[in-house]
Amino acid sequence: MKLAIELAKKGIGKVSPNPLVGAVIVKNGKVISTGYHEKYGGFHAERNAILNAKEDLRNSELYVNLEPCSHHGKTPPCTDLIISSGISKVYISILDPNPLVNGKGVKKLRENGIEVHIGLLKDEARYLNRVFLKYITQKIPYVALKVAMTLDGFITDSLGNSKWITKENFEISHSLRNFFSSIMVGANTVLKDNPRLTCRNGGRNPVRVVLDKNGITFGKELNIYDETARTIVFSKNCINKMECYPETDPESILKRLYSLGIDSVLIEGGADVLSQFFDYADEMHLFYSTKFFGNGLSPFKGVKKFVDEKRAFNIRKVLKLNNEIYLEVVRNV
Amino acid sequence: MKLAIELAKKGIGKVSPNPLVGAVIVKNGKVISTGYHEKYGGFHAERNAILNAKEDLRNSELYVNLEPCSHHGKTPPCTDLIISSGISKVYISILDPNPLVNGKGVKKLRENGIEVHIGLLKDEARYLNRVFLKYITQKIPYVALKVAMTLDGFITDSLGNSKWITKENFEISHSLRNFFSSIMVGANTVLKDNPRLTCRNGGRNPVRVVLDKNGITFGKELNIYDETARTIVFSKNCINKMECYPETDPESILKRLYSLGIDSVLIEGGADVLSQFFDYADEMHLFYSTKFFGNGLSPFKGVKKFVDEKRAFNIRKVLKLNNEIYLEVVRNV
Repeated sequence: MKLAIELAKKGIGKVSPNPLVGAVIVKNGKVISTGYHEKYGGFHAERNAILNAKEDLRNSELYVNLEPCSHHGKTPPCTDLIISSGISKVYISILDPNPLVNGKGVKKLRENGIEVHIGLLKDEARYLNRVFLKYITQKIPYVALKVAMTLDGFITDSLGNSKWITKENFEISHSLRNFFSSIMVGANTVLKDNPRLTCRNGGRNPVRVVLDKNGITFGKELNIYDETARTIVFSKNCINKMECYPETDPESILKRLYSLGIDSVLIEGGADVLSQFFDYADEMHLFYSTKFFGNGLSPFKGVKKFVDEKRAFNIRKVLKLNNEIYLEVVRNV
Repeated sequence: MKLAIELAKKGIGKVSPNPLVGAVIVKNGKVISTGYHEKYGGFHAERNAILNAKEDLRNSELYVNLEPCSHHGKTPPCTDLIISSGISKVYISILDPNPLVNGKGVKKLRENGIEVHIGLLKDEARYLNRVFLKYITQKIPYVALKVAMTLDGFITDSLGNSKWITKENFEISHSLRNFFSSIMVGANTVLKDNPRLTCRNGGRNPVRVVLDKNGITFGKELNIYDETARTIVFSKNCINKMECYPETDPESILKRLYSLGIDSVLIEGGADVLSQFFDYADEMHLFYSTKFFGNGLSPFKGVKKFVDEKRAFNIRKVLKLNNEIYLEVVRNV
């Protein structure tokens, strides 16, 4: 199953808003075939593994990190193919929460005499497909915030300067841009930093989302309006030349993104945007430099939480990167 | 030498302002005796190790994390004893910066035909005796700051509440109180939290230091004025019943503590005191809860540093404690 999950990761940045799925077929204790969901609209992992097999699959075992589909979607149901292949046991990490599947795949397999085990590496499988699981059940994109700050929590010093608080670990930053299907910033950040918001470690570019209520970036020569990636703008003053929508509050913006098939958004700043979306954040990626400013701009200055409130986030990962700390926290659900 | 350093640690909280020293004697590849500096005024580690030996020490090797003394202090010079013992080789981690010793110990040993090697585990040895090394060379106590804050850097929420931002890992907090010989807080913290500032994991209590410029804590029933530990107050309005000194600026306060034989101070807050001593901090112990307040009190609100300034601190340790992060940073020297 570990191998299945590793294979599934190869689909990162390519299958959205589909789930990341890998499949491994084992016979007599040996891996005899593998497959994964390679791109949106392409064959499912199970189908690829079965098609890749060069041996007779009778009495073999299939390991797959998500329940096989039992419905006709862009491709025919995987359960039928599994049944006809002769595979005798199926190990599944988690059920597919998609109401079109959700247990029906398992039921169909069992009705056809296949032994099915559920739960192997379920935490890893849930983490891998956290975007899909939210998108499909809550009909809203998965929201990640990214903040680079000092150890005393400032994203700019008292003069408003922020370049560079952290060295922004290149590998992690750009992996995030590949993992999430869109990246959001506010208009002030666009004007101040003129970011490209592209993925520069070989991944595909995320859709760029700009919150520009008053249209202050319009008509300006800015990197986000170049041709390297799709850019979506939210503004009260939409103009013709761009893909622009009128929503201005976080909830409506997220719903619009969902309706556009965008399953996840990485929010990179500034403080106004981070604060607006604080309560929607599913996870945060926090980079701390070992500086202290004493005074400056706080990332969530528009938020007011109190000491007696329940802890909203848990630590998922802590890394020491040279002289910086990288922290991944996830909402406590 | 590893063992010598472990033995030296047994003196934590007991030998101040002397250094922490352990000694191990090895003969034919076997440890035949050990010793450490057990308490202020007591025998040095080398002497204890030699006295504890039950075998002939000729052709044995001594491992000690600090250069043996060559001067008459509270006890006679260790070098003489080492020479007369028959020990043939001495491994030393670091030289004693005390001008009374500083290389003279090594010279004396070599002049008497003993082979001396310097530098084994020198980083560990320097870290272990960082308080002594500063105290003896700079004639000022070693300064450590301790801060408990949210991931966005607030020590209180916007209502001023701080109990409890972090669960304050008991083991680490009280080990710090045992390690440092004094603990400092401001008068407002004393009035607000009425802390005891004692060491409650079996160590000895640090000297309590209260900065109360205007005497607002005087005449009140407060835990810091109980009999469990010595309390030193700094105030413009000293009154008779207490140990009180008139200094109010950080530099003079530290000099006074030095003159009182206090080799180190752990500063626990609040923001005014932390800010005043920021530039004197040799290291910081930072505890982060996984909360975010958005707004509140910053630990160094009286400090103003800028993004283009040189990084002042390096990371020495990162720990994940349940759902909190503990970070030890040290001034970049």
